[in-house]
Amino acid sequence: MMRVGVIGASGRMGQAVLQELSESELVPAAAVVSAHSARLGQPTLAGLNFCAGSELQAGAVDALIDFSLPAALASNLQLAQRLGVPIVVCTTGLNTEHEGLLESAAKSIPLLYAANTSVGVCLLEQLVHLTSASLPAADIEITEAHHSAKRDGPSGTALLLGKAAARGRGANFADVDAGVRGDGLREPGSIGFAVLRAADITGEHSVLVAQPGERIELQHRVTDRRIFASGAVHAAQWLVEQPAGRYSMADSLNLRDHLTTLLKQI
Amino acid sequence: MMRVGVIGASGRMGQAVLQELSESELVPAAAVVSAHSARLGQPTLAGLNFCAGSELQAGAVDALIDFSLPAALASNLQLAQRLGVPIVVCTTGLNTEHEGLLESAAKSIPLLYAANTSVGVCLLEQLVHLTSASLPAADIEITEAHHSAKRDGPSGTALLLGKAAARGRGANFADVDAGVRGDGLREPGSIGFAVLRAADITGEHSVLVAQPGERIELQHRVTDRRIFASGAVHAAQWLVEQPAGRYSMADSLNLRDHLTTLLKQI
Amino acid sequence: MMRVGVIGASGRMGQAVLQELSESELVPAAAVVSAHSARLGQPTLAGLNFCAGSELQAGAVDALIDFSLPAALASNLQLAQRLGVPIVVCTTGLNTEHEGLLESAAKSIPLLYAANTSVGVCLLEQLVHLTSASLPAADIEITEAHHSAKRDGPSGTALLLGKAAARGRGANFADVDAGVRGDGLREPGSIGFAVLRAADITGEHSVLVAQPGERIELQHRVTDRRIFASGAVHAAQWLVEQPAGRYSMADSLNLRDHLTTLLKQI
Amino acid sequence: MMRVGVIGASGRMGQAVLQELSESELVPAAAVVSAHSARLGQPTLAGLNFCAGSELQAGAVDALIDFSLPAALASNLQLAQRLGVPIVVCTTGLNTEHEGLLESAAKSIPLLYAANTSVGVCLLEQLVHLTSASLPAADIEITEAHHSAKRDGPSGTALLLGKAAARGRGANFADVDAGVRGDGLREPGSIGFAVLRAADITGEHSVLVAQPGERIELQHRVTDRRIFASGAVHAAQWLVEQPAGRYSMADSLNLRDHLTTLLKQI
Repeated sequence: MMRVGVIGASGRMGQAVLQELSESELVPAAAVVSAHSARLGQPTLAGLNFCAGSELQAGAVDALIDFSLPAALASNLQLAQRLGVPIVVCTTGLNTEHEGLLESAAKSIPLLYAANTSVGVCLLEQLVHLTSASLPAADIEITEAHHSAKRDGPSGTALLLGKAAARGRGANFADVDAGVRGDGLREPGSIGFAVLRAADITGEHSVLVAQPGERIELQHRVTDRRIFASGAVHAAQWLVEQPAGRYSMADSLNLRDHLTTLLKQI
Repeated sequence: MMRVGVIGASGRMGQAVLQELSESELVPAAAVVSAHSARLGQPTLAGLNFCAGSELQAGAVDALIDFSLPAALASNLQLAQRLGVPIVVCTTGLNTEHEGLLESAAKSIPLLYAANTSVGVCLLEQLVHLTSASLPAADIEITEAHHSAKRDGPSGTALLLGKAAARGRGANFADVDAGVRGDGLREPGSIGFAVLRAADITGEHSVLVAQPGERIELQHRVTDRRIFASGAVHAAQWLVEQPAGRYSMADSLNLRDHLTTLLKQI
Repeated sequence: MMRVGVIGASGRMGQAVLQELSESELVPAAAVVSAHSARLGQPTLAGLNFCAGSELQAGAVDALIDFSLPAALASNLQLAQRLGVPIVVCTTGLNTEHEGLLESAAKSIPLLYAANTSVGVCLLEQLVHLTSASLPAADIEITEAHHSAKRDGPSGTALLLGKAAARGRGANFADVDAGVRGDGLREPGSIGFAVLRAADITGEHSVLVAQPGERIELQHRVTDRRIFASGAVHAAQWLVEQPAGRYSMADSLNLRDHLTTLLKQI
Repeated sequence: MMRVGVIGASGRMGQAVLQELSESELVPAAAVVSAHSARLGQPTLAGLNFCAGSELQAGAVDALIDFSLPAALASNLQLAQRLGVPIVVCTTGLNTEHEGLLESAAKSIPLLYAANTSVGVCLLEQLVHLTSASLPAADIEITEAHHSAKRDGPSGTALLLGKAAARGRGANFADVDAGVRGDGLREPGSIGFAVLRAADITGEHSVLVAQPGERIELQHRVTDRRIFASGAVHAAQWLVEQPAGRYSMADSLNLRDHLTTLLKQI
């Protein structure tokens, strides 16, 4: 039975991962918080107490999932290297320096970085790339809907999908990003965004790819926030079987193999 | 067989109505253009020549459909009164003075005014009113999609639907209109708009009415522009059976009767 | 603060209503189970113990919500009458005899019966009626999607919507019900059903009303099963303000008033 | 300016291709019908007369598009070989013998076979394959909507998509095809179909891929039947640049290149 340690265990996502682990066939084996946290030593789910990373002994966990903050990235990677276990890093807002830390750590341990741990969003990104590349003259518009308390728009995921669409055409996203359009004429080749905010919508994205007489729509809907925790756990299960190296959610879906198979069949 | 005269017969919509009539069980009986038109006397569909309104004799048509311009409204209404026939007025951009002309003419002939002759849009407007009234705490967002050559947004129909939603709650549309939203927090009670432009989309509107845990979506799609012509023809067929008075598309759908029946059944 | 007693309090829906009450501005004031229940006296949410209806004193609750079984309907109605409080009855599978009991009780207390307590479904039913009535020549197809463990199909709600569509046209549902269609030609005037089963979908219904060139789609989606509990609570809040009589969810949405207002405005 | 000959030129699709060519930058250069056709010698679009294939001289056309019947396949391929030009074959209902003819002809000329010439459907098929492969535990349901005069269901394209989904998982379609489901429990791993028939819907397909808490929906809508003609013309334009060999619509979209690029980027 695979034992997983969760870093950032007292946060909303950290707790969701602990919960997910406790309901899975895996074992929640450590609930790591900052060495300065007031929660240190307090009980959490599944008979665990919050602990500092320095308390973890080699052999205590088989993998780590990190939902803490960029500021803790260096020490979290050191922890994974000291324990010699794979780590799934799910923090957002990384800079170039953090990128360097990831690259370096991936030389000695399996490391998977994911800003969004939804397997559906990961897949959708690739589908949008392919569609945009294959229908280069089509008009692309991206719609997203989220709960009414979300302040920013378009969502980070909508922008991610827009970038995949631009990349599929070899375009620079900044050059084709039309933002949120109201009045005014559509520029050929541009990518527009539409933003809806209502009630408790967890997260929905739709990519419209239209040319005269026909259209493709690629949609993703989240109905339960737990998928972000289960996506991270799924990634960790996949990662423990891999050699040292840098991986992505797309790797954990074996997307490379599926693309290769498809290439042989068409 | 009912004979219909079309005013503004050389315009895009006028020609579409002539075409629709020629393929229906009705008879296209007059193709009226301005007395100064270069098309006067030239042949058009169905063996007709373009003519001026002054050439029409009493008994020549059973009803008129007007797809000309507001500037011609006064003389068009006089024509209908002189012939003693019902008139369906489909011009847009009327002002208060034009409103007065409509009211006055409706005292002597049956008159139906419709800025949008889609029966689906007319019905949707009423459904949005009812939904907004019945779920007063729900968040409402309106999405519209049109072809990439459309310059203005949100569409006139999207605004019409937004006004119906506001009216359903006894709110002033200007007070709750959030326009097209990008960044920034949703105001409770506001109505937001999202605009998509792509390829040759004829016209699509979707009204999202969401509250925690459930939502209603009311959608209308046009796939063939001919419905605007057939809607006007359908209205004319209904109008010839009515006494003098002012009517709307909702009347031609017998919506009053349907609402009354529903009131008795719930 | 309004105090609500829940009948059938140990069942899935009964517990959900207790939970909903405990998180609302209302007070969960009694958790009623069968006099033979093994749960009698055991603690439940909010400091309550499961109790028998006979233990309730006049003045203990301001309203009752019944999510128990048809077999208990007679005694539940007697309880409401003895306490002199309104009752929201949410049991399904009632027969003609049960109908008689409801009619009789409604002479002395306010009584609201709802087989489905979603306010959205209740509203959708009326919208489908109106749309079907207003577009009598349109083709109607109803699609529903539910979780993969649901055995029956089309869902009860899909059939309810089909009946509303038939009623809107003065048709007998049995005469126009085309069931689930695969191969074979569509009969004019028939109503077809499509059934999807996948993953954990809570419940989605879509009514397509299409005529050449345009279509209306009326959709309802549930993303959180809690709306059924909150719908019952909302109904109870509305019911305590009413005189004795028989009511429906449509009444609790003030739909009659909204229809009357709309009638005046069109 | 590329000159295209159309085989089966008097049929519905053949005429649509001639029309498409006459409105494009290409030249409709021959309208081929059977040597026994009553239309031989009669005028058609663009100053052309219907002719037999035997009348075509080398150099008369740069490519052929075949929308005739399987029975004429052998002579059509011989015509292309005699003229030494690429041929796009769009007939449906080919058997193993026809397959052999295609393989054989492709040794000397560029040949593209497409049962469905919509570029969107071609692309969707690949997206469904990838999605099904990447989310092997997800439930898949395929919905299609067509006009009310369509007799068979599910549509050939829906079955094509179902086969792509099965292939993505290495499954035999016959083993996982659940057909159109009404009552009854969903089998894990099965693929269900839902069929809608209404009004004049040209053709719509939606593939739902759902797992707990999230779902992907891949949709394709045709709003204008002309895309089937323009897809064939697009394929011919691509084909004239290729060496002898057997190709598909996926090739004409350069899908192989796009997949290879994506493989390098993920």
